[in-house]
Amino acid sequence: MTRRTPSGAAVLQPEVTTAIVDAVFDELVDKGVGRLSMEGVAARAGVGKSALYRRWPSKDKMVMAVLADLSVPLAEITDTGSLRGDVRATVEAVTGWITHPKFRRVLADLIAEGERHPERAAAVVDAIGGPRREHAFATLRRAIDRGELPADVDLELAADLFAAPMYWRMIVRRGPVEDDYLDRVTEMILRALGATTC
Amino acid sequence: MTRRTPSGAAVLQPEVTTAIVDAVFDELVDKGVGRLSMEGVAARAGVGKSALYRRWPSKDKMVMAVLADLSVPLAEITDTGSLRGDVRATVEAVTGWITHPKFRRVLADLIAEGERHPERAAAVVDAIGGPRREHAFATLRRAIDRGELPADVDLELAADLFAAPMYWRMIVRRGPVEDDYLDRVTEMILRALGATTC
Repeated sequence: MTRRTPSGAAVLQPEVTTAIVDAVFDELVDKGVGRLSMEGVAARAGVGKSALYRRWPSKDKMVMAVLADLSVPLAEITDTGSLRGDVRATVEAVTGWITHPKFRRVLADLIAEGERHPERAAAVVDAIGGPRREHAFATLRRAIDRGELPADVDLELAADLFAAPMYWRMIVRRGPVEDDYLDRVTEMILRALGATTC
Repeated sequence: MTRRTPSGAAVLQPEVTTAIVDAVFDELVDKGVGRLSMEGVAARAGVGKSALYRRWPSKDKMVMAVLADLSVPLAEITDTGSLRGDVRATVEAVTGWITHPKFRRVLADLIAEGERHPERAAAVVDAIGGPRREHAFATLRRAIDRGELPADVDLELAADLFAAPMYWRMIVRRGPVEDDYLDRVTEMILRALGATTC
């Protein structure tokens, strides 16, 4: 019996991972991605820096992984059986994502930071935007298969519409999310895409 | 004859105003709205702080005025005679605004800053968003008068659509502005609004 972790198979304790993830979000809110440091995250999580490097090879990979692990699953929508239902679920899920208490302030910082460091912005788009859009495309392809959308629907523009109005309304304009705004956005998207059911 | 400016009627030299406005934008890009100072702007413009206070009563009022003077006129669209033409001109003008060399990085910072200081964000929305939207509403009302849009068209949602897709595409996703993207957005908006001419 030994108390040492076997060197060839590091055991990652889930509660340590959780503490680190929380610390990453808190540091992102306090300092922004530019000034976040491995030291700061480790200190806030109450762990050594080695605990971070055991999980991620670099600061940038750590931040991207933490943000993607929160963001990508939130774009996964259960098939409701209709395009209207799927779009409604999508715009609601997008709203939950961009107003997520952990994520809301981080997103605006990431975008501003992206203007200064395009390579960092490209990493965010690859790690978060790309996989999230694949979920949107899957939703749209289901609707094409059901005959609810024309086969040549503009997938890229449609995916933009699934997110852009809520971001503009809530984050740029800081407007209220009226009870029926998501309903109105849903109907607008159905019309915009030329849905047969609108 | 005296060389002193009459105290009751300060003469504001236009070339000084231009130098100050340029300095405000440069400071906004370098430091962000949070760390911009009257001292920094004055030094960069090569004028005394009194030249700033002669024009604006405070830092916040100065920044808002400078941003609004750039942003609001850019939302003014010449009546093209048709909704399709007006929407195409609007989405092109929005694109020019959010990618304006002086403004692009400032906008992302303003939004991020707005998450930290809601009262500052509200001032931006009042000084820029409100007047810009009035121009959008005027465009939409012209279309209603021409019979191109239903009288009960959702003006608020329509105004969001005039800007949101381009912001999402270019600033959040950092995607390319394909030659035909604005054409596709225009047709999408016409369908979304239930235009009689789409």
